[in-house]
Amino acid sequence: MIIVLKPGTNKDNIGHLVDKIKGMGLKPWISEGEERTIIGVIGSEDVLRNAPLEGLPYVEKVMPILKPYKLVSREFKKENSVIKLGSGVEVGSKKLHIMAGPCSVENEKLLIDIARNVKAAGATILRGGAFKPRSSPYAFQGLGEEGLKYLAQARKETGLLIVTELMDSKQLELVEKYADIIQIGARNMQNFDLLKAVGKSKKAVLLKRGMANTLKEFLMSAEYILSEGNFNVMLCERGIRTFEDSTRFTLDISAIPLIKNLTHLPCVVDPSHPAGHWGLVPALSKASVAAGADGLIIEVHPKPEEAKSDGAQSLLPEKFRDLVVELKKIAIAMGREI
Amino acid sequence: MIIVLKPGTNKDNIGHLVDKIKGMGLKPWISEGEERTIIGVIGSEDVLRNAPLEGLPYVEKVMPILKPYKLVSREFKKENSVIKLGSGVEVGSKKLHIMAGPCSVENEKLLIDIARNVKAAGATILRGGAFKPRSSPYAFQGLGEEGLKYLAQARKETGLLIVTELMDSKQLELVEKYADIIQIGARNMQNFDLLKAVGKSKKAVLLKRGMANTLKEFLMSAEYILSEGNFNVMLCERGIRTFEDSTRFTLDISAIPLIKNLTHLPCVVDPSHPAGHWGLVPALSKASVAAGADGLIIEVHPKPEEAKSDGAQSLLPEKFRDLVVELKKIAIAMGREI
Amino acid sequence: MIIVLKPGTNKDNIGHLVDKIKGMGLKPWISEGEERTIIGVIGSEDVLRNAPLEGLPYVEKVMPILKPYKLVSREFKKENSVIKLGSGVEVGSKKLHIMAGPCSVENEKLLIDIARNVKAAGATILRGGAFKPRSSPYAFQGLGEEGLKYLAQARKETGLLIVTELMDSKQLELVEKYADIIQIGARNMQNFDLLKAVGKSKKAVLLKRGMANTLKEFLMSAEYILSEGNFNVMLCERGIRTFEDSTRFTLDISAIPLIKNLTHLPCVVDPSHPAGHWGLVPALSKASVAAGADGLIIEVHPKPEEAKSDGAQSLLPEKFRDLVVELKKIAIAMGREI
Amino acid sequence: MIIVLKPGTNKDNIGHLVDKIKGMGLKPWISEGEERTIIGVIGSEDVLRNAPLEGLPYVEKVMPILKPYKLVSREFKKENSVIKLGSGVEVGSKKLHIMAGPCSVENEKLLIDIARNVKAAGATILRGGAFKPRSSPYAFQGLGEEGLKYLAQARKETGLLIVTELMDSKQLELVEKYADIIQIGARNMQNFDLLKAVGKSKKAVLLKRGMANTLKEFLMSAEYILSEGNFNVMLCERGIRTFEDSTRFTLDISAIPLIKNLTHLPCVVDPSHPAGHWGLVPALSKASVAAGADGLIIEVHPKPEEAKSDGAQSLLPEKFRDLVVELKKIAIAMGREI
Repeated sequence: MIIVLKPGTNKDNIGHLVDKIKGMGLKPWISEGEERTIIGVIGSEDVLRNAPLEGLPYVEKVMPILKPYKLVSREFKKENSVIKLGSGVEVGSKKLHIMAGPCSVENEKLLIDIARNVKAAGATILRGGAFKPRSSPYAFQGLGEEGLKYLAQARKETGLLIVTELMDSKQLELVEKYADIIQIGARNMQNFDLLKAVGKSKKAVLLKRGMANTLKEFLMSAEYILSEGNFNVMLCERGIRTFEDSTRFTLDISAIPLIKNLTHLPCVVDPSHPAGHWGLVPALSKASVAAGADGLIIEVHPKPEEAKSDGAQSLLPEKFRDLVVELKKIAIAMGREI
Repeated sequence: MIIVLKPGTNKDNIGHLVDKIKGMGLKPWISEGEERTIIGVIGSEDVLRNAPLEGLPYVEKVMPILKPYKLVSREFKKENSVIKLGSGVEVGSKKLHIMAGPCSVENEKLLIDIARNVKAAGATILRGGAFKPRSSPYAFQGLGEEGLKYLAQARKETGLLIVTELMDSKQLELVEKYADIIQIGARNMQNFDLLKAVGKSKKAVLLKRGMANTLKEFLMSAEYILSEGNFNVMLCERGIRTFEDSTRFTLDISAIPLIKNLTHLPCVVDPSHPAGHWGLVPALSKASVAAGADGLIIEVHPKPEEAKSDGAQSLLPEKFRDLVVELKKIAIAMGREI
Repeated sequence: MIIVLKPGTNKDNIGHLVDKIKGMGLKPWISEGEERTIIGVIGSEDVLRNAPLEGLPYVEKVMPILKPYKLVSREFKKENSVIKLGSGVEVGSKKLHIMAGPCSVENEKLLIDIARNVKAAGATILRGGAFKPRSSPYAFQGLGEEGLKYLAQARKETGLLIVTELMDSKQLELVEKYADIIQIGARNMQNFDLLKAVGKSKKAVLLKRGMANTLKEFLMSAEYILSEGNFNVMLCERGIRTFEDSTRFTLDISAIPLIKNLTHLPCVVDPSHPAGHWGLVPALSKASVAAGADGLIIEVHPKPEEAKSDGAQSLLPEKFRDLVVELKKIAIAMGREI
Repeated sequence: MIIVLKPGTNKDNIGHLVDKIKGMGLKPWISEGEERTIIGVIGSEDVLRNAPLEGLPYVEKVMPILKPYKLVSREFKKENSVIKLGSGVEVGSKKLHIMAGPCSVENEKLLIDIARNVKAAGATILRGGAFKPRSSPYAFQGLGEEGLKYLAQARKETGLLIVTELMDSKQLELVEKYADIIQIGARNMQNFDLLKAVGKSKKAVLLKRGMANTLKEFLMSAEYILSEGNFNVMLCERGIRTFEDSTRFTLDISAIPLIKNLTHLPCVVDPSHPAGHWGLVPALSKASVAAGADGLIIEVHPKPEEAKSDGAQSLLPEKFRDLVVELKKIAIAMGREI
């Protein structure tokens, strides 16, 4: 931690601050420059991180040196974490995995139909929401447990694993009963009680990045889950909010290499939400694989104009099938496979 | 709703779309321009809002005409809503109300000391968090119910009303027991289960704007609460996330007149969080009053450098007192009072 | 300057870096923490600022300590700079100045009519563009020198001073001939050749902040002008680009106290461009005065729906007159005057 | 154009507006809904685009239907434009082209050395700035004409074509004399006088997107150049400004398929500036090719830590060579070649 003092800070104040730092069990060193006095602190930064020294009138700024996350960091674990999900599905290994399916679970027949289609095309995991976060209270809110049952049925019939969203800690037991992967949505990335709850779960977690959250905050939210004991976390980039309005969100493609570099966790990309329109999904999917993603989660619907949510960004099953063919070529060029 | 078709859309497709719209009980009219065919739809937009016509390959874009919110809108209720909180405190009337106190409740003595100070300065409501949303799992997470009890004690001793944050619907009953106003934090603005829960409460709600949410989304989140029956909602602007890094967030000052114009609900401003540093709090507070805010919520702490959270942005009690003196002058210039 | 090395950097590399720093005439000190080695550098940061040490594979990050601007800084000059413009107009003093007028100069009669109106209401400076930056090549591009002549005529008839935009260094001599204040528009804030050109001019400059520029970059652009010898610079906050789309830009109200704190230059606010609609201009103007602005620049037009540019955000002369009455009250509450 | 009126607008106002629209030679049609009256306008939208009807007090909003750009649009020209640059280099064809070189031209020997290296690796165009836009007036500003001469010498010795930045219209003739492609930098994307100037040039133009400009504004700036007669324009995505601070800018990967979809012009990507650090350049380069880019422009320097600008984001020549090997595989997977 580096503490920069305002010009003209007097000796008493410097002494007071030095004593304070020593009182926390840390070792300060002082560097008097021509324009500013700087105090560096050796030792655990966590103690200081929670001491708001910027509240002192003579402190100009406080600059942390170390990263605030530990368990998720590449320094904590050098090799890639591989999330073993059963049925031979391992996310984070050489093989990429594609999660596909409708935004919302709408009815059993449709769901199973989509499941068969995406499996035939190459997907290994079925996505579908039973609890839906909708910006309007007047929009379809999901089928609840009924939807979860349809997902289980689809798994039984196709062998696909299931990823589905948990919105409130009250539904954790229910969702755990049906899902193979619990999705935490972008709007809940900083719902810390929910993070703690899934941190205590035995199920794997797909954590989506909040639309306005920095990568650092994203990793801190993952740290919440790992710090409760659940290390089976996949990080999902899904676009951030920017001024550009020709897409729904701006896919932060740089997040992929950064996540792979800073953490040991697998990185999954959702190309559908940032696109906002199905026409862009193929290009964003290909770019994500080329940037190093370990998996994709893509919305597929046979009648997008009748989908109860996110129809505009859903691929038709035949377009999805064509896309996977293309993705396989990129994966091979990357030394990987799908 | 205006539906713009791609150039060269054929008659069959147009006919198909027109039938679809009629099938929803709506009346379409067609306008054939030189470059594009446009279909307008008369009747309730809600039906169409949930039909993702942009999923159709020949639809270029769909433009809604009407606002998606109803109960919160100025058109639903012409006159200002005044939230009556007891002890004569009415937010949304001529008199502005100031909520002040520490970020977190830390201990009883300190809290009561701050409460006395802010009351003497002119505040009518005491703020303080017992459940704290912290980006790091290693940071102070709040005292929980113990903190709520200290708040209740401070109310008893000073007569100030209490505003405190609810983070998870599981704690609703507990928080209701102690609080006069339930705060929904920025990170939970789109925690829809939580919104529904407080929508069923009898307590007033202070809803903070999410750091990456548009004003429209903010009003839709308020709509969730009103649509469950709770009309005692105050909207709190607290800064949005932008590229500018010399402040913690960018206070969206324009949100104040827009909220007053588009809705009938009171608008409260939190100048502390966008500032990120106490030195900016006075200017942002004054600007907010001059822009038409109905109230302010300000962090105050006697030893900011020892605060367990947000110390850097907390005002010393004496600086808070001086600020209220200044704010009174601006309020009078605005034809209001504090 | 603080240089943070990657964990495990070997002694040879540290030695190489230390030699490099000494070779620049600077004094390095080394601090070996448990997790990272840090090298601090005492002496002028400018030398290092231009040495991209982050290019070295063993450097994790480089953190500057000092501000990159000098001449514009409050540390360079403690007291407020007052820009003396003639006719007794002094921007940066106790008295606030209002610049008002049409977006573009359209014709002589209309301009003089507006000039008379805004003068009667309390403005001291007339704004109007003869060279217009328009995002479309098919939109009205301004009258050029003819427009400048009308401005000069309006000055002659009303005594108002003139502020008008310069878009290309080729027109500098022409604009200097007519203007009292040369405006550099937001889109040219980092047109460095233009900044150098007006830095050599004797005329005062109103420098607008770029829509995507940080405050630090804004001050660096002002530094360009001062470093060429022209200290008569006013900094104009005019809104930044964010995700919020209910306004044209987001007025960064915090920029006002920050500019007053970090620099000695006057701060002027343009409430018209961020508003994008005349209905918001009064609230933003009042907020700006309450936040400490030294002046305002406001668009006024008697027939906004016929204005050749920016009609939607132009105030009618009678609304402008009413606004100035309100602003005077806020100014008095702030201990200032208009 | 769709004009939405405020609820309760009276017949006189509607009549007034209808007359106004007819007076412009356009045909209005009126649709009276339950909540709002809407006026649609058939005919050229350009006339209305410049009439700020939002200035009328009874107009709620004005929604354009058509795109504001024409010459750059895919509707204007169905097939891809291929920019023929000489020496067999054609940007926009099946073969992708890589532009590589130092940020700034520093000295002749170094430049020629880099040129030989990047040519051997597979680049066909040499980049290098002689005029440098620097945010600080105290930073290296470029060698000017001397730098241009070195570029010409490097072309002579290697056969590579030259791309270099033009910052001010005064230098157009000079830059034209040496460059094969004139680069317009991000900070000048809305320097309209400069756009008009290169629009009259016979040289190809590489137009970089402004860091805060929407795609629509980017295409409008290209429209400026085409509307002056120069159709040899390449659009360069180089990252936009967002809240994310772990990269220098956020590469808007979606811009690539959108540009290819909306326009007929080639799309080139600069992965170096958004990365801000060389470690991210390979992933962003690969993603760009997979998203459909027609070319890349990459910074390469043999001693990044001594580069006079942008060292941190420059690749070493050997890393660049390795990257091109990888890129070739992705290009083949995309059905293209490098």
